[in-house]
Amino acid sequence: MKFEVLILGTGSATPAYGRHPSAQIVNFNEELFLVDCGEGTQMQLSRFGIRSGRINHVFISHLHGDHYFGLPGLLSSMHLNGRKNDLHVYGHPGLKEVLDLQFKYSETQLKYNLVFRPTSPDNPETILQMPRMRVLSFPLHHRVPCTGFRFDETLRASKHPATRSYAYCSDTRAFSGYMDAIRNVDLLYHESTFLHEMVGRAAETLHSTALEAAQVADRAGAKKLLLGHYSARYKDPEPLLREARTVFRESELAVEGKAFGVMDVFFNGQLTVDN
Amino acid sequence: MKFEVLILGTGSATPAYGRHPSAQIVNFNEELFLVDCGEGTQMQLSRFGIRSGRINHVFISHLHGDHYFGLPGLLSSMHLNGRKNDLHVYGHPGLKEVLDLQFKYSETQLKYNLVFRPTSPDNPETILQMPRMRVLSFPLHHRVPCTGFRFDETLRASKHPATRSYAYCSDTRAFSGYMDAIRNVDLLYHESTFLHEMVGRAAETLHSTALEAAQVADRAGAKKLLLGHYSARYKDPEPLLREARTVFRESELAVEGKAFGVMDVFFNGQLTVDN
Repeated sequence: MKFEVLILGTGSATPAYGRHPSAQIVNFNEELFLVDCGEGTQMQLSRFGIRSGRINHVFISHLHGDHYFGLPGLLSSMHLNGRKNDLHVYGHPGLKEVLDLQFKYSETQLKYNLVFRPTSPDNPETILQMPRMRVLSFPLHHRVPCTGFRFDETLRASKHPATRSYAYCSDTRAFSGYMDAIRNVDLLYHESTFLHEMVGRAAETLHSTALEAAQVADRAGAKKLLLGHYSARYKDPEPLLREARTVFRESELAVEGKAFGVMDVFFNGQLTVDN
Repeated sequence: MKFEVLILGTGSATPAYGRHPSAQIVNFNEELFLVDCGEGTQMQLSRFGIRSGRINHVFISHLHGDHYFGLPGLLSSMHLNGRKNDLHVYGHPGLKEVLDLQFKYSETQLKYNLVFRPTSPDNPETILQMPRMRVLSFPLHHRVPCTGFRFDETLRASKHPATRSYAYCSDTRAFSGYMDAIRNVDLLYHESTFLHEMVGRAAETLHSTALEAAQVADRAGAKKLLLGHYSARYKDPEPLLREARTVFRESELAVEGKAFGVMDVFFNGQLTVDN
């Protein structure tokens, strides 16, 4: 049963070097979950051959533009493309207010039902329970209210007794507060905006360094770490990877258009890429 | 003295065939005016080598997403890139409300002064007067309040007694109401969402056909017509051009990344492309 993460954006607040802002598709058994939706996400979906009509759940971590400015356009396009199925959107309560105001001025009456579920910036909460998958939101530590998301497989075919899990942490200062929520995940996506030489800037802006992301992965008992949200100051994110690997060997760089499998078994110490 | 229009987006409401939503740069003597700002405009600017810091005036025709969903991201990036100069934004009063709400939730205090000037959906108005350039907004006829913009050169070097003018009409049902505002322009950009075989759909959605855009250009005494805002149903916009030319020979297709000169003299009956 497929469980993978397709990266749509690896950049941070300002666009640089053709990188796109944060967005990714979690594909669990062909059920598609969109996690964050920076500007241009609908074009990225189209570029990588993902029909947006297949997405039924959208998770927005926080209301900095590089994590949600693509959402109004995506919702409008779903409407114009005749979507009928409910769409579930999870995020800060202010998100609904922004969308409602935009739809008011565009005089848009969505043809489908947008089911909005506010997330809590204070406590971990199960926000979605499906037959084989449960999604938890949990507080991160950023300049505005921000939540991470954890996807837990709850039931797997009998020959695979181990269930798999994926956690998404962006944007956040690395700290112990979310350690329980991400404990023992098979794959951890953690922002690594800066190299550790910029730790002062990371602390100031409530972001993490690659080294810190690796320390989090190590302490949480994650099996694999996926780095992303690279600052515009880095043309090449490779040094971020080298830095992370000094602490946590099973680190990889998120790459736009690349799918990363959420695996409980690894071969040759390499992250198995399923794409 | 340069006077040209660089096309950043030629698509309409839903993205298709790699086309981007509406946006263009009017370059008058290296003063850059941004006209509409669909999703992804900041990436298009970067792709075509335009530093967004050079833009001091942004004109938004109306509050359908494909004309402004790129603006919040562009304004945020200008802020993050340390902009200090005032930025003048012209549009429907609701635009300010949307931006303010987004900045409230992102807890953004812009480092520069955003000077917002509401446009009137009811009457033509001079909204900007510079030493050599005057900009007029004028009502169009669309499903939500919508204005076109006319750029008039007011003073030219003495050896060129003729001043030049450019008008932008998107989105609108072709009608006589804005004829005076676009009279005798050297270059007219007019939306041509559909072929005339879809005129029923054009009337229903308050858009124009290529044939109608050409009729408008002809009746207004425009020297050249630039077509754009192509429906996602057309992979190739060439038939739109052929249709327009049956009525108005000096028609051209807007092409992303291409600059079209605003000229008062034409050579060999061809639109002189200055890029």
